[in-house]
Amino acid sequence: MSTENSSDLAARQRRLAEFAAARDWGRYHNPKNLAAALSVEAGELVEIFQWLTPEQSAAVMERPDQAARVRDEVADVLAYLLQFCEVLGVDALGALDAKIERNEKRFPVPEEP
Amino acid sequence: MSTENSSDLAARQRRLAEFAAARDWGRYHNPKNLAAALSVEAGELVEIFQWLTPEQSAAVMERPDQAARVRDEVADVLAYLLQFCEVLGVDALGALDAKIERNEKRFPVPEEP
Amino acid sequence: MSTENSSDLAARQRRLAEFAAARDWGRYHNPKNLAAALSVEAGELVEIFQWLTPEQSAAVMERPDQAARVRDEVADVLAYLLQFCEVLGVDALGALDAKIERNEKRFPVPEEP
Amino acid sequence: MSTENSSDLAARQRRLAEFAAARDWGRYHNPKNLAAALSVEAGELVEIFQWLTPEQSAAVMERPDQAARVRDEVADVLAYLLQFCEVLGVDALGALDAKIERNEKRFPVPEEP
Repeated sequence: MSTENSSDLAARQRRLAEFAAARDWGRYHNPKNLAAALSVEAGELVEIFQWLTPEQSAAVMERPDQAARVRDEVADVLAYLLQFCEVLGVDALGALDAKIERNEKRFPVPEEP
Repeated sequence: MSTENSSDLAARQRRLAEFAAARDWGRYHNPKNLAAALSVEAGELVEIFQWLTPEQSAAVMERPDQAARVRDEVADVLAYLLQFCEVLGVDALGALDAKIERNEKRFPVPEEP
Repeated sequence: MSTENSSDLAARQRRLAEFAAARDWGRYHNPKNLAAALSVEAGELVEIFQWLTPEQSAAVMERPDQAARVRDEVADVLAYLLQFCEVLGVDALGALDAKIERNEKRFPVPEEP
Repeated sequence: MSTENSSDLAARQRRLAEFAAARDWGRYHNPKNLAAALSVEAGELVEIFQWLTPEQSAAVMERPDQAARVRDEVADVLAYLLQFCEVLGVDALGALDAKIERNEKRFPVPEEP
């Protein structure tokens, strides 16, 4: 359903769709469940940082165990986002481009004095 | 810091980094804050579906107002995920590929009987 | 369904149950939906703090508009938690007491040197 | 800081405050961190239900392992909510009462035809 068939992101979206289809997980993958799963993974990402100061949070990749956990949660968030987009036919990159363009108008760069 | 310099996703990551830098938002964009912002947007995506049945959730793009809201939240989640990866030097696509490979071993496809 | 019938919290739980019943909202109030709604409201609470430093976050009640928003989100989180407990027959105070007792064993107070 | 000194909820709030003080956790317990921790626990509650149908979600307490997990997450959400209210001097029950009164006006009970 995506229009960005040649992109790197679309390739992962297709691979995840094939992965779910081969395991007959489609019955679980309605948009409501996938949005919930995405937010659960986002919560797990927040958990890594919840007691850290801003400074400690910036150094989190220096510890291999924490770095692995961060990469793992990033992967989970992205995977569920792509699976969500797959079942609803949402073009994630197109939505992002439209958002960036709106934000460039909404938050103009301050001019030099 | 990303290795996928030629990808579609990396291009958006750079554009978002330039957007934030031009507005001097770097002081807000530590990993802790960006993870929190990502989870807030994931919550806004869940909100669209919270009272819907699974069947209603699958038809959400048929209503233009809801479809626009879905695309908007998808864009927000992806934008914060890329900004998070930017400040920590995480390769989102690489993390996803590693995850998919692990999951293919963890959840083997059931054989035909 | 609750055992703490004489408590302040149980009184609110009953009032919220009557509120929902009078509006025929029971069909929306299954545990899955109420857990999602609770997490959405928790996200709205996080949103107030997402770009604040720890120091700024401690001063948030000094601004009347932010203080009202904080109270509003606290009320929403508590309301959905009680409605969730109502539909599943969970005794929230009992669960909390059990948790505190476990945590007192799990995290003993460090002895003076 | 709370006005409902005689309530069941206030007693737990004090006990949690003493628990944190005895372990010198006050430096972690700023409102920003506690709101994040609350949302993480809300996410763990959602996780229990993420792949369940609404019907399955209503039967979750029939399985002892799931019932224990539900009670555990309810306790965590309530504990962080009370600790959040403690550090900001928010009266949780007062905020809830005000909310219920506003909602009773906002959503009048439909009259019989």
